[in-house]
Amino acid sequence: MIYDKAKLLSEVARRRGFFWSSFEIYGGMSGFLDLGPLGVGLKRLITDSWRSLFLHPHGFVEVSTPIITPYKLLEASGHVENFKDPITECTQCHRRFRADHLVKEQTGTETEGLSLEQLGELMRSKGVKCPECGGVLGAPQYFMTMFKTSVGPFGEDPAYGRPEAAQGIFVNFRRISEVMRERFPLGVAQVGTVLRNEISPRQGPIRLREFTIMDFELFFNPEEPECPFLSEAQEEILSIVTAKTREQGKEEVTKVRVSQAIREEVISTPWMAYFMSLSKQFLASLGISEAHQRFFEKLPSERAHYSAQTFDHEIQLDRYGWVEVAGFAYRSDYDLRRHMEATGTDMRIFHQFDKPVERTVVVVKPRPDKIRGAFGGNTGKILALLASRDLPSLIHSAQKSKMVKIEQYEVPLDFFDVHSDKVKEAGSRFIPHVVEPSFGVERLVYAALEYGLQMKEDRLILSLPFRLAPVQVSVLPLVNRDELQERATAIFTMLLRHGFRAEYDEAGSIGRRYARADEAGVPIGVTVDYDTLKDGSVTLRDRDSWAQVRAPVDSLAATIGKIVSEGFPKSRSSTLYSG
Amino acid sequence: MIYDKAKLLSEVARRRGFFWSSFEIYGGMSGFLDLGPLGVGLKRLITDSWRSLFLHPHGFVEVSTPIITPYKLLEASGHVENFKDPITECTQCHRRFRADHLVKEQTGTETEGLSLEQLGELMRSKGVKCPECGGVLGAPQYFMTMFKTSVGPFGEDPAYGRPEAAQGIFVNFRRISEVMRERFPLGVAQVGTVLRNEISPRQGPIRLREFTIMDFELFFNPEEPECPFLSEAQEEILSIVTAKTREQGKEEVTKVRVSQAIREEVISTPWMAYFMSLSKQFLASLGISEAHQRFFEKLPSERAHYSAQTFDHEIQLDRYGWVEVAGFAYRSDYDLRRHMEATGTDMRIFHQFDKPVERTVVVVKPRPDKIRGAFGGNTGKILALLASRDLPSLIHSAQKSKMVKIEQYEVPLDFFDVHSDKVKEAGSRFIPHVVEPSFGVERLVYAALEYGLQMKEDRLILSLPFRLAPVQVSVLPLVNRDELQERATAIFTMLLRHGFRAEYDEAGSIGRRYARADEAGVPIGVTVDYDTLKDGSVTLRDRDSWAQVRAPVDSLAATIGKIVSEGFPKSRSSTLYSG
Repeated sequence: MIYDKAKLLSEVARRRGFFWSSFEIYGGMSGFLDLGPLGVGLKRLITDSWRSLFLHPHGFVEVSTPIITPYKLLEASGHVENFKDPITECTQCHRRFRADHLVKEQTGTETEGLSLEQLGELMRSKGVKCPECGGVLGAPQYFMTMFKTSVGPFGEDPAYGRPEAAQGIFVNFRRISEVMRERFPLGVAQVGTVLRNEISPRQGPIRLREFTIMDFELFFNPEEPECPFLSEAQEEILSIVTAKTREQGKEEVTKVRVSQAIREEVISTPWMAYFMSLSKQFLASLGISEAHQRFFEKLPSERAHYSAQTFDHEIQLDRYGWVEVAGFAYRSDYDLRRHMEATGTDMRIFHQFDKPVERTVVVVKPRPDKIRGAFGGNTGKILALLASRDLPSLIHSAQKSKMVKIEQYEVPLDFFDVHSDKVKEAGSRFIPHVVEPSFGVERLVYAALEYGLQMKEDRLILSLPFRLAPVQVSVLPLVNRDELQERATAIFTMLLRHGFRAEYDEAGSIGRRYARADEAGVPIGVTVDYDTLKDGSVTLRDRDSWAQVRAPVDSLAATIGKIVSEGFPKSRSSTLYSG
Repeated sequence: MIYDKAKLLSEVARRRGFFWSSFEIYGGMSGFLDLGPLGVGLKRLITDSWRSLFLHPHGFVEVSTPIITPYKLLEASGHVENFKDPITECTQCHRRFRADHLVKEQTGTETEGLSLEQLGELMRSKGVKCPECGGVLGAPQYFMTMFKTSVGPFGEDPAYGRPEAAQGIFVNFRRISEVMRERFPLGVAQVGTVLRNEISPRQGPIRLREFTIMDFELFFNPEEPECPFLSEAQEEILSIVTAKTREQGKEEVTKVRVSQAIREEVISTPWMAYFMSLSKQFLASLGISEAHQRFFEKLPSERAHYSAQTFDHEIQLDRYGWVEVAGFAYRSDYDLRRHMEATGTDMRIFHQFDKPVERTVVVVKPRPDKIRGAFGGNTGKILALLASRDLPSLIHSAQKSKMVKIEQYEVPLDFFDVHSDKVKEAGSRFIPHVVEPSFGVERLVYAALEYGLQMKEDRLILSLPFRLAPVQVSVLPLVNRDELQERATAIFTMLLRHGFRAEYDEAGSIGRRYARADEAGVPIGVTVDYDTLKDGSVTLRDRDSWAQVRAPVDSLAATIGKIVSEGFPKSRSSTLYSG
């Protein structure tokens, strides 16, 4: 790459209104990003495209829950204890940094999952220094990275900004499951803002303190882990850096077919494999080719507190190298179980057997008459104690001594009636397991832009696919005369009515407007000139090749449709091109 | 109304998955709302419908900025000083309430804009008591209703959750205006989360601490206040409770044509009148008829600190009475001016005159020679003092005394050279004025649901318009047999491909599924039975009339399209109905 894409991109993004740093006129605050008109458009198209791939065809649903979240909920979910990062302060300039990031940047060592002591030792032994002033860094310590606030007039309810949207789904699982008539497996998504009080983020749009997440929880029965959609994906080939490879100190990619990955337990559950293949497709649809994608498995020490297996979906970015844009976590029943324990809400799902199953159960009953004979006035107390225990196991472990010990009492085995019973069970209850694909939307916006950025004859072109272009057609009067402006405005309105994302632009020379539209990623320009008034034809211009054709206004919408499906006609034809 | 719509609605909303209170399993936290799958869908359709009415046809744009906002920005905007509510604490049970709400509820007196003293006096004189225990209430005091947090590892940057999305637009005005090539007037919107730490909110979905706002700022030149779109709206009739009427202690509605409202200055600026007429149309499209809408003008004492004229767009709700769903504020140049003053950023727009304008300016120059002759060593000081003043006005006001007084010095008029000069000016710079329509989205969701709720033979029907229905078509196999399920799934997929919001439902008897679809607001049911396998026809069922017709699967999409535009055919026909 002979030009600095990240720098070019940030300039174009600012100039054309995709994104820029927040609060610029107040001196800025790092980790916050504004989206301009085109950024808002692109972001919405990306989230909608994700919905149409992950949700709609499967009948999966979406919910929306608050950002502000009570302390006790995030305590139960383990975030209060685990959502923290190691921080180090320079003893000289007193700036603060992520200790693990500095170690990784300055020594190349993977640092996720290291303890404070290990990090501190690495910093000393490898001579990690302050990146700002070269000063000696202090010992690392933990810092909780949730934003704290409180609710109510006197701060009576401590709360945090949610660091993930997933918890809003877990705590509502009971209700959502009822609304969905206990349909199972059940997929529930949430697209929304999350807040993470990152320590001195220094990577522009890549590391944000406030961003949009697309969290998606797939609930399934661990006894029936099959994914019914897998047949469509099993031939897909995934590029994985496995934990095994990484444990050997290597970062090589293993190419593995989805079916094989499941068979050989490279991926622990079929739903996860299915979503990984969807994700690969999704990123490809944003313009990120396969060669620049990989799945990077986390080592057990690196995984989040709730996860039994994690893959990061990474892509290559020009300045930042391999960057995570999605995470795939096998959260097992961790979250539902924690919320069940904290609140007593039954989160289990009833699973009806195909036909009732007969089971043999051991039934144990204490004999009050015999107990009273031996223990007299203590009988009531002993019976109460026995009632609170699992009698079959008590009896089972008393086979040797022939005595059931309960507190200070020893009750002989023959004071109990023990017999087997056959019972019919219609089904059983289980806590669902969860596979979670989770995407960071701003990183996807950034990636789609970087992969669309091209140079052509010293000029920048943003080659977004037609489907993703925030503005698809720019309508341009050749010069600013009333009759051309009126005609162009009418064409603009007509295109809007046909459902195209159109804009009308009359500011500046036609050459400058073409150049601007190229940078804004507008695939097609429609120029209205004096011939338009005479013969009802306009010029269509292709963003990527700069080729031009004339086409009649009457069938303009159809012509654009044809160009989208067949591509722009190669050369300028003397006859009219028409859909 | 013989049934309690608010209660019925909250039950249906919960049962069908529109909305419910947040954090239920953790005991709840008032002022927070979850949206279920249908609620998320309805909310998105409402916001999109707003965009297609307010933004797209005018070429107006949308941006997105952070929720977390630095202290200094909200200090400059006046929120730190003004965003507060009067609170009172019960001396007996120590619960806390909005003092103004209690006074209004218990005495019927309008309270907006009253001082703490006036509120306290009303509470005493009218005997306002604690609504929970009847105890005596303490003196009201102010409480700041923004959520406080801080950014960075040691809380170095104090910040608040934004109480409105508008500020993100104002602080970016310079940049957005550049991106939009200084096009003017300029409309910029933001749809996003806002946070308000309301004191003990007790009105369910109507008063939320976290909600979605659609803020829209229209920037215009105060010298050219005309709205070019007004011609489409000037015949519209608005129902307004004017400030004048209210000052006479009445609440009567005045019906006034938009053109007349502008002419007679009932509405202070044409853009505001235009947006009010759009808003009326918008609410009507959500099913809220004109008779249940009114514009309620705020008295000067009731207006927000930034507003020169405010109308609330109110609608009638069953339990809550007249409720504001939108506010129209004429923010003048208040916000841009405050941010200019706080940051020194030039927010002015250059307005080019049609042709350069020649102006006569008075040029005044002190004559150092004469001043030195009279004032000697003080000459330098006097010249410096004069340089810092507006000399033409000084000279003008000295015409009588013939002396220019500056501090202790008196300088004779003839110590100045005064002459007129002609200068050509190509244009002038001005700070744009702002008209803001602002909608609360959750209230619109609630209102659309309440206005759609109907009873039919003891059963609930949610008569949402087809355009607003989160699910438009429900595909139902008559019974759960493989061949029917397969056919129904294929029809479901086909409808999705045609762009309908479809669902597939096989849970329970067909009667129960119809009832459920009626409550969920699904306009059309498509039932697949054994005849479908034989002759390729399905039953279409109308939610509102429960009428049914048979129609061929082959042209199903077209048939549904026809029903949407022409209505459901009146009676069951023996022949196939087809688009």
